[in-house]
Amino acid sequence: MKDDEKKIIEAFVEEELPSLFDYLKIPSISAQNKGIDKTVAWIVDKFKILGAAKVEKWNENDGNPVIFAEFNGKSEQTVLFYNHYDVQPPDPLDEWLTEPFEPTIKDGKIFARGICDDKGELLSRLSLIDYFNQNGGLPVNIKFLIEGEEEIGSPRVEKYVCSHAEQLSADYCIWEGGGKDEHDNFQITCGLKGIVSFEMKVATAKKDLHSSLATFADNAAWRLVEALNSLRDKDGQVLVDGFYDDIVLLDENTKQAISELDFDKDKLEKNYGLLRPISDRGSADSLVNGNTITINGLTSGYEGDGSKTIIPSRASAKLDCRLVPDQDPQKIAQLIQKQLVVNGFSDVKVDLGHGEYAFRTPLNDSFVKLCKKIGDEVYGVDNCLILPNMPGSGPAQQFNSELKVPIVMVGIHYAGSGPHSPNENIRLEDYKEGSFYLYKVLQALGNK
Amino acid sequence: MKDDEKKIIEAFVEEELPSLFDYLKIPSISAQNKGIDKTVAWIVDKFKILGAAKVEKWNENDGNPVIFAEFNGKSEQTVLFYNHYDVQPPDPLDEWLTEPFEPTIKDGKIFARGICDDKGELLSRLSLIDYFNQNGGLPVNIKFLIEGEEEIGSPRVEKYVCSHAEQLSADYCIWEGGGKDEHDNFQITCGLKGIVSFEMKVATAKKDLHSSLATFADNAAWRLVEALNSLRDKDGQVLVDGFYDDIVLLDENTKQAISELDFDKDKLEKNYGLLRPISDRGSADSLVNGNTITINGLTSGYEGDGSKTIIPSRASAKLDCRLVPDQDPQKIAQLIQKQLVVNGFSDVKVDLGHGEYAFRTPLNDSFVKLCKKIGDEVYGVDNCLILPNMPGSGPAQQFNSELKVPIVMVGIHYAGSGPHSPNENIRLEDYKEGSFYLYKVLQALGNK
Repeated sequence: MKDDEKKIIEAFVEEELPSLFDYLKIPSISAQNKGIDKTVAWIVDKFKILGAAKVEKWNENDGNPVIFAEFNGKSEQTVLFYNHYDVQPPDPLDEWLTEPFEPTIKDGKIFARGICDDKGELLSRLSLIDYFNQNGGLPVNIKFLIEGEEEIGSPRVEKYVCSHAEQLSADYCIWEGGGKDEHDNFQITCGLKGIVSFEMKVATAKKDLHSSLATFADNAAWRLVEALNSLRDKDGQVLVDGFYDDIVLLDENTKQAISELDFDKDKLEKNYGLLRPISDRGSADSLVNGNTITINGLTSGYEGDGSKTIIPSRASAKLDCRLVPDQDPQKIAQLIQKQLVVNGFSDVKVDLGHGEYAFRTPLNDSFVKLCKKIGDEVYGVDNCLILPNMPGSGPAQQFNSELKVPIVMVGIHYAGSGPHSPNENIRLEDYKEGSFYLYKVLQALGNK
Repeated sequence: MKDDEKKIIEAFVEEELPSLFDYLKIPSISAQNKGIDKTVAWIVDKFKILGAAKVEKWNENDGNPVIFAEFNGKSEQTVLFYNHYDVQPPDPLDEWLTEPFEPTIKDGKIFARGICDDKGELLSRLSLIDYFNQNGGLPVNIKFLIEGEEEIGSPRVEKYVCSHAEQLSADYCIWEGGGKDEHDNFQITCGLKGIVSFEMKVATAKKDLHSSLATFADNAAWRLVEALNSLRDKDGQVLVDGFYDDIVLLDENTKQAISELDFDKDKLEKNYGLLRPISDRGSADSLVNGNTITINGLTSGYEGDGSKTIIPSRASAKLDCRLVPDQDPQKIAQLIQKQLVVNGFSDVKVDLGHGEYAFRTPLNDSFVKLCKKIGDEVYGVDNCLILPNMPGSGPAQQFNSELKVPIVMVGIHYAGSGPHSPNENIRLEDYKEGSFYLYKVLQALGNK
């Protein structure tokens, strides 16, 4: 009977999938402001067809609209889904083996930009609503918040959550993302790291100078290199006074969950094409609760072919720091600027960019426990783990601080999905199994 | 009588100058392979009109032709002039107040790309030949070697000098460049620094990765920053084992000449638009005999607008080191690669680029003494200095090792000339006075 149920759900979503491919064909690229209206129209239309009690487009804060929808269920329980309809640019195009906006099923995988991050998950969710509609109704009330600016840092979602908090109220929140690790273990992911992005800029002269003057004229590129180097030791430890002060101690549940994670250096090196071995600082512990200071880009002076014997007058670096609870993104940027002054680099300026707090749903929350229980049933107890938080970031803390709702990520990707990369894909089996898992979760919540 | 002579020569070259402007109108940009043939044709034609005994175009080594010319004089003495007909690209165009290839006389200055470096000097030399032709003949034999690849590092001139050594034989060589310092003192410049250009490259993964993985995945930009930082201390001292080993001790004449130079930090800061004060390492001594390791450019990861949370998989830096006698450019690059390995950066590769040895004519050479004596007469003893070598580089050592000829630079530029920059210019007074000075030198050599 249970096996039959799994087969039925999996067959349903598999059969319906090709009819939903239109969503993947629209290049909804927020960074390039492409295809937004068309994508929004597709989703709104789909919600109406599925019988939503309410569908709204919010755009009072400008930017790409947020889509809100509400479906009535048979119980008092309410689940809020967070999704985003925007995707990363497909570049570099020449590395794709299929067309990024022409979804293709091949070797048991579905290839398309956004299939993993995060369009595929919406399709699975829509398909389940359709199934429930045809089979006695939704076990819970379902709300959707679908934003269109996740790939550019969700700059406005917090505003929308604050001003629509009542409408968004829910008992549980199922986030985007989540799925299987490099050992194909299914992960119940309970949080996200925080982030602060910033730029470091320095100028040493009004214009680039001839490099013969380097015995007396300062060099912006050298200043930047020295300033950067003063912020981190060779093991990746951040050398900024106060940087680690606000980090909360891990509770026993979180420590336990980390100890159960299998951090396989060989597999990670191979999966990610690393050319250098992972050092001792690479560990399950640091992946969950470690800080990083990452140079995203360096720019200075002559970058063309051949050589040009100049002293660059300007240099800049883009950076991000991944943060953990309760580090404050803005405070972190200020501490870095302060440290630069202390280190003798008061001329190196920190321009604050995007910031997000880290977030973790407590692992002893009943929602986490229920997700784990169903995970054990669907994937097997040996293949289901709890990940206290993923190493990436997102606006979950902004949701939680306003909505006070437990948030988990229980998705359909696997270690080879390659979000943001060419040939982004998910496995059809994961799509089917992940949809069945979600079906079971919604049913269980309805019976609570 | 002497004043009359000065007036006559200065009037002659001033009057003739506009008729020579055609040379400045041809954009002979070696880096972009522009206008080379037309420029060569102009020079060859001019030499023929001036009655050269021999004019040759050498191009057996490919690249832009070298022009050789020979004029017979009334004595046994032979002077070799080194010039180059190529110029730097005029970019950035929007910073020019006049058209770069439309020579313009304004406020006593001549503005044009190449007027300082190095077309103006050729015009002065041609004008003097014309004057001597009309007034009893050349006091010395004159040879010209004019290359067309100086602005791209003179990659082939050494070959030409070696294979044409006999034709180029001379008693004295007058180089391009030279002129007045920021105090308007006339400098007899007796050499050039050496240089080695190279690129440092590192890769840490097959492709850029999501920055959430930074707890375990290495970062090419950080590797580069750390590798660069390991090569230099904060005072600019090069931290490469053996780097300083081959430097020859300064002789007393050179020390004396350096002690007479006026290194005015305030003026230099103002002239060059420096945004940071010149430190203690900036001195006349280091300008003449100091080494530098200069980052010319940095490239890594995301350099566009906004932020992109990636771990760059590749990073590179372009650098040059200015060298002094007897440092070997190739050896220096090898020492740097070796030091990187010692410092733990065996994955950071050094790609050797262009190299040139430093060169100094001994300051007690009779040619230097004669140039100084005439400098004292023309510019005044308090306004004429000997500069053992300029901080820039050029293929002088390649000339000297083959031709065994003393080389000096006695030119027409001033501290505001801005070679390689927008609004490159010389002062008309310097052009006239410098031409008279050269006239006196040639006369004196003829009377030796």
